[in-house]
Amino acid sequence: MNEKKIKDIIDDALEEDLGFGDITTDHVIKEDEGSTGVIRAKEEGVAAGLPISEKVFERLDPEIKFEHLKEDGESINPGEEMARISGKTKPILKGERVALNFLQRLSGIATKARRYVEKADSDVKIVDTRKTTPNLRILEKYAVRVGGASNHRMGLSHSVLIKDNHIRSAGSIQEAVKRVKGNVPFTTKIEVEVESIEEAETAVNAGADIVMLDNMSLDQMKEAVEKIGDNVELEASGGIELEDIEAVADTGVDIISVGALTHHIEALDISLDLMN
Amino acid sequence: MNEKKIKDIIDDALEEDLGFGDITTDHVIKEDEGSTGVIRAKEEGVAAGLPISEKVFERLDPEIKFEHLKEDGESINPGEEMARISGKTKPILKGERVALNFLQRLSGIATKARRYVEKADSDVKIVDTRKTTPNLRILEKYAVRVGGASNHRMGLSHSVLIKDNHIRSAGSIQEAVKRVKGNVPFTTKIEVEVESIEEAETAVNAGADIVMLDNMSLDQMKEAVEKIGDNVELEASGGIELEDIEAVADTGVDIISVGALTHHIEALDISLDLMN
Amino acid sequence: MNEKKIKDIIDDALEEDLGFGDITTDHVIKEDEGSTGVIRAKEEGVAAGLPISEKVFERLDPEIKFEHLKEDGESINPGEEMARISGKTKPILKGERVALNFLQRLSGIATKARRYVEKADSDVKIVDTRKTTPNLRILEKYAVRVGGASNHRMGLSHSVLIKDNHIRSAGSIQEAVKRVKGNVPFTTKIEVEVESIEEAETAVNAGADIVMLDNMSLDQMKEAVEKIGDNVELEASGGIELEDIEAVADTGVDIISVGALTHHIEALDISLDLMN
Amino acid sequence: MNEKKIKDIIDDALEEDLGFGDITTDHVIKEDEGSTGVIRAKEEGVAAGLPISEKVFERLDPEIKFEHLKEDGESINPGEEMARISGKTKPILKGERVALNFLQRLSGIATKARRYVEKADSDVKIVDTRKTTPNLRILEKYAVRVGGASNHRMGLSHSVLIKDNHIRSAGSIQEAVKRVKGNVPFTTKIEVEVESIEEAETAVNAGADIVMLDNMSLDQMKEAVEKIGDNVELEASGGIELEDIEAVADTGVDIISVGALTHHIEALDISLDLMN
Amino acid sequence: MNEKKIKDIIDDALEEDLGFGDITTDHVIKEDEGSTGVIRAKEEGVAAGLPISEKVFERLDPEIKFEHLKEDGESINPGEEMARISGKTKPILKGERVALNFLQRLSGIATKARRYVEKADSDVKIVDTRKTTPNLRILEKYAVRVGGASNHRMGLSHSVLIKDNHIRSAGSIQEAVKRVKGNVPFTTKIEVEVESIEEAETAVNAGADIVMLDNMSLDQMKEAVEKIGDNVELEASGGIELEDIEAVADTGVDIISVGALTHHIEALDISLDLMN
Amino acid sequence: MNEKKIKDIIDDALEEDLGFGDITTDHVIKEDEGSTGVIRAKEEGVAAGLPISEKVFERLDPEIKFEHLKEDGESINPGEEMARISGKTKPILKGERVALNFLQRLSGIATKARRYVEKADSDVKIVDTRKTTPNLRILEKYAVRVGGASNHRMGLSHSVLIKDNHIRSAGSIQEAVKRVKGNVPFTTKIEVEVESIEEAETAVNAGADIVMLDNMSLDQMKEAVEKIGDNVELEASGGIELEDIEAVADTGVDIISVGALTHHIEALDISLDLMN
Repeated sequence: MNEKKIKDIIDDALEEDLGFGDITTDHVIKEDEGSTGVIRAKEEGVAAGLPISEKVFERLDPEIKFEHLKEDGESINPGEEMARISGKTKPILKGERVALNFLQRLSGIATKARRYVEKADSDVKIVDTRKTTPNLRILEKYAVRVGGASNHRMGLSHSVLIKDNHIRSAGSIQEAVKRVKGNVPFTTKIEVEVESIEEAETAVNAGADIVMLDNMSLDQMKEAVEKIGDNVELEASGGIELEDIEAVADTGVDIISVGALTHHIEALDISLDLMN
Repeated sequence: MNEKKIKDIIDDALEEDLGFGDITTDHVIKEDEGSTGVIRAKEEGVAAGLPISEKVFERLDPEIKFEHLKEDGESINPGEEMARISGKTKPILKGERVALNFLQRLSGIATKARRYVEKADSDVKIVDTRKTTPNLRILEKYAVRVGGASNHRMGLSHSVLIKDNHIRSAGSIQEAVKRVKGNVPFTTKIEVEVESIEEAETAVNAGADIVMLDNMSLDQMKEAVEKIGDNVELEASGGIELEDIEAVADTGVDIISVGALTHHIEALDISLDLMN
Repeated sequence: MNEKKIKDIIDDALEEDLGFGDITTDHVIKEDEGSTGVIRAKEEGVAAGLPISEKVFERLDPEIKFEHLKEDGESINPGEEMARISGKTKPILKGERVALNFLQRLSGIATKARRYVEKADSDVKIVDTRKTTPNLRILEKYAVRVGGASNHRMGLSHSVLIKDNHIRSAGSIQEAVKRVKGNVPFTTKIEVEVESIEEAETAVNAGADIVMLDNMSLDQMKEAVEKIGDNVELEASGGIELEDIEAVADTGVDIISVGALTHHIEALDISLDLMN
Repeated sequence: MNEKKIKDIIDDALEEDLGFGDITTDHVIKEDEGSTGVIRAKEEGVAAGLPISEKVFERLDPEIKFEHLKEDGESINPGEEMARISGKTKPILKGERVALNFLQRLSGIATKARRYVEKADSDVKIVDTRKTTPNLRILEKYAVRVGGASNHRMGLSHSVLIKDNHIRSAGSIQEAVKRVKGNVPFTTKIEVEVESIEEAETAVNAGADIVMLDNMSLDQMKEAVEKIGDNVELEASGGIELEDIEAVADTGVDIISVGALTHHIEALDISLDLMN
Repeated sequence: MNEKKIKDIIDDALEEDLGFGDITTDHVIKEDEGSTGVIRAKEEGVAAGLPISEKVFERLDPEIKFEHLKEDGESINPGEEMARISGKTKPILKGERVALNFLQRLSGIATKARRYVEKADSDVKIVDTRKTTPNLRILEKYAVRVGGASNHRMGLSHSVLIKDNHIRSAGSIQEAVKRVKGNVPFTTKIEVEVESIEEAETAVNAGADIVMLDNMSLDQMKEAVEKIGDNVELEASGGIELEDIEAVADTGVDIISVGALTHHIEALDISLDLMN
Repeated sequence: MNEKKIKDIIDDALEEDLGFGDITTDHVIKEDEGSTGVIRAKEEGVAAGLPISEKVFERLDPEIKFEHLKEDGESINPGEEMARISGKTKPILKGERVALNFLQRLSGIATKARRYVEKADSDVKIVDTRKTTPNLRILEKYAVRVGGASNHRMGLSHSVLIKDNHIRSAGSIQEAVKRVKGNVPFTTKIEVEVESIEEAETAVNAGADIVMLDNMSLDQMKEAVEKIGDNVELEASGGIELEDIEAVADTGVDIISVGALTHHIEALDISLDLMN
């Protein structure tokens, strides 16, 4: 990942919480006091964000030691230790909440991603969307990968997705694809969102590399797979829940995008306990 | 709120999504084309973040018109229009996802806050925690207020909260409170987290203004209210779920803090549809 | 304190002075040349800002050694050494002025604060105001504490202070307090500025935690202490000079706020001399 | 001046004070309420910083009207109105302290500069130094000019000043000047700090454009003026106080630099009163 | 494009040039003086960057009028007027150099791009590389498009390009492609750089979407086109000069990448003359 | 130079290229893999920017070793090694393009500067202009010095240059100089741009320190040197090409400014090859 961008996110988060300083810790804890802390899972799931938590403490005090007992992507069970931190007490207490805020959210996302991937139990790719938390996309898309799912485009400059509004404005799928083809980086695939089999076929003929089947029925998806599945990649999209995954995967589509991976975020229960 | 800080958050979010530019819209949509769009609720809840969505579009094009049909804090029902946007099509399409990402999350938080407040149905204050999304605290705490709940401290410099680690390090509750009293701004209340009635009484005697009853049973809470409820404010804390709210409120505590308000975020289903 | 914020202030100050670079030192001094310098007091006072000076040099060259011979808060006398710096000559010369600009100003503030505290010679708290130098508040409020005085609120989000304009707008003290009570973080005390004993009593009845006695006579202050001193904290405010401190302290108020601590800044005379 | 840099300083200052928002004003004052305020001098002096104050309010609300009744550089007397502000009450109250913090400090500097210039009562140039408040140099040097004095170099990249440490390191004044001559922008004058008449003469011969007479007696200064005054500009420097100005000016030096202009800052007493 | 990013680039450029302010213009030109200026081509070429120049002046003074007489992409001839600016003289003079620095460089790039495209005179795509000026990529890639050429990937996160070092590290082309396939956004094409026909065929079999023919002879390119031209896109790369373009285009490759478009930058001669 | 400013430029350049991360390298290269790379000249010229390249890698991984085999300012020949880099493969590959983009451009500028200086073969100073790449001025002016040429003013706040528009606005050269004299820092020389010998003489009489002879013929320059060459520095300016240098130098002017040094940038051909 881009280390600089991540440092900036962490610095901003510390700034947000610390403001003029941690007035409790600054006055209660002695400068030289040391502690050892344990980051412990209190719920089952998938670890994600441990290197981020480490960096939170490192930004506050480069001499804090952070021992990884789990790696991102490993399963965690209630009671299991994920990491041990030792160093001065002050920076440990000051960074605790920020470190956990990252770790709990990212582990929550990875846990959910893992659940979808396991449910699919096939070659289909489970992917995220751009429905990520503002300013945390790089981390949330990382957590999605940690959980075993894949990423849709990172942002609006990363690939082409022609949606209904674009088509309406261009007048036709053909025209919309044509306007894009000569002008965007040739390294980028072109995806077209369609609402019917006819539109899907038009998109293929216009030169789309990927066709997004928006809110289609299972039968429609199957038909699309049969008719154009050999020519383009097919993405199923639109409010697909965990319980729908198997059925959608069975239609033969290549990709299933799941907004819920990042727009329903349940922080995993993880604590930091100081032992001395 | 602090307008400058909010503009910075919005600018960063647009930057995150746009990167080198929206390569689809930039090439498909004509410069002068105009559109009118409708922001519509697809789920029941409480509106929060409409002024933020408005600013997203305003940052992209100051001439876009954003007509508020709902105000933050109002109830919304599936199908109801929340706002109408009109102006050039390009900035509307470029800002759509970012605007919705803010609006859906903040409305999700306000909706949840409202649910807790209604459940309590008493004078007790439902408050949030510092378990907010990194770098979005100012917005998430705003959404909590929009939903009718209140805020705990904004950050580590805003008030004193002496926790178990502070107490252990200071040697006693008395000593911890003493170290803080003379040294933090006198405008700040001092809160002490306790795990027993004895500790609660010690905290009161040491001069605490607020006592946080951490993970106590309902009986313990009642005992605390009886013994020291007249002398300090009492905050119930620790994994309190929606179904516990009434019982906890009935103990007579003054405040119930609920981490779930911001660490389980369910984006409310809201869409933006262009009409032309 | 918040280390990140302080690093940013220091970086900006170096940027401000260095611009495209120190064209004198860059061309006159050889890369490898080394020096030892002494930071020396030339005036009596209280040291404040030594760790800031240290960081100025550290930002320019992490290998510079900075030996503290005085700690912040210690008295200094003309001729006394406060610190010794050794390392490459170039970064020492480049950072000299910025380091001294911080150190002299902060020591000037701490010295003045000490003078007020000693003059009071009682339990009364001498506190600062928000009349701080723009963008240096975190440092100036630190220097005030180093000098033995205390801090009033750090900023507008840190606690409530209802002033005459708020009262006029709300219609009454009661109404103003009421509007605030349910809505600001419960961790924050509520202060009301009053101009008469009657207003002070109203404020207490409305639920104020602190009453600011604005520009009152000594007799009025005494009356306030007698009538409501047991119910709230009382702050004397308004152009109180060093020579007034004892008399005001004798009235029995809890707090005396002194704008002059930070709006009359006399940089203490301190020099940096290279010895080789 | 550089408008962008000044906007950044103002934005940071507002951020510093507002943090998560003005919790008093946000809850007490109604959104639509309007007010008119008067900025009034309460002490005699020179106005400086009125356009800065105006920008503070403009950043909070572009629709606030700021009517200038005095211009920067004009004399002000106790009771005189300097400006009138009208618009929404909320942004007026939120910006009040920050606007005054700028205005009072800058007016304090301009007032002091005027005093030195009037005292000199001759062609001699009174100039400031680099002993300015970190991160406010652009404003403080502006206030110095407003008061009628002039600026020494803006920063380390703006011109050459060879000091004792540079000379020691280079081995001689000649060598130091030589190292600089071919290498710095030819648009920049070269100044050398000297401690004796001999050094002054050496500096002239080496090609210095300006010679700084550091801590010299009045007799030495006169001697320097006689011997080399026709060949270079002569700057008197070193702890020169207001009462010394005339005598130093009489020696015939061209420039007198006065650190006190910016390192002893006395905020001028100025208030903002809302009239409704 | 991303307006926010461009504003930031412009603001930084103004800051770089203005520093503490334009000391010449600030003191010579009267505040209220107005001027009209003409931006005029003094050399033949393609206009690019006019909207950027406009924004430079707009950032300095929103009231300056900038009339476009040419649009980006239009041919310009010596003596032709490209734009007229009217407004206050001060901001026009302050922004002149920065505005021209952008306009001349971008027009230089567009002019060169146009020359390559015209030379190719075929369907082949002329594209740029990542050899752009640090921190100006968004503008330089825009200028390339203005000149009629296309963009290669915008940055390292935008698409996959497997080079020799990646292949060596992975052990084989197959393995390198495999490592990437499941893990990068599926919206991204995969390009492999090869040095022989065999490698090219391996890349196709491994699933590459694009094959970069690095420093191949014309005969090799033709062979590649014949053997795999129907299966993948073929990019010719490696020191291709203007005089080689036709011959390379004739081989039938799809894309020719030309580093020189942005790493040999010849600012087009364009001036700004004030008429009064 | 100003290290902080340079770090910021480098960080922005890495951010620009990396965005969400190097998706190729991140997935193909193993975390622990190590490499040694060689930076090698492929063209004759002058090295400039090696410390910048070093910092690019250092920002990505402080443990990368960068061995300098050439120093900035040394001549380089095709095939010669300029530096060796060893460390983890990932950061080497991620930083490669950015490091080369800086190194090639700066070496290109230094090479061109050297060529002009050698051509002049006299005491005349070859200097650059403000026609630098936006936001890279500090580096480009450094490269000019590395090549043996000198710098004109760094920016608009660094010295005075009165041009035709200033003169027209002031009414006369005398008036323009007068407006500036008392008001800019006395450490700054005053330069006036003139178009005739008469104007040049007027400028000298008005007190100019430097006179810029704009687009004058060789004869005019000689006349200027004879008439006023002893009283001021004379700068020849206006489209002076490499082939004109000798003749212009022979006129006896002190300075020749050459815009082409930075507005025609030819990146020197330099490569980075990994050896394992």
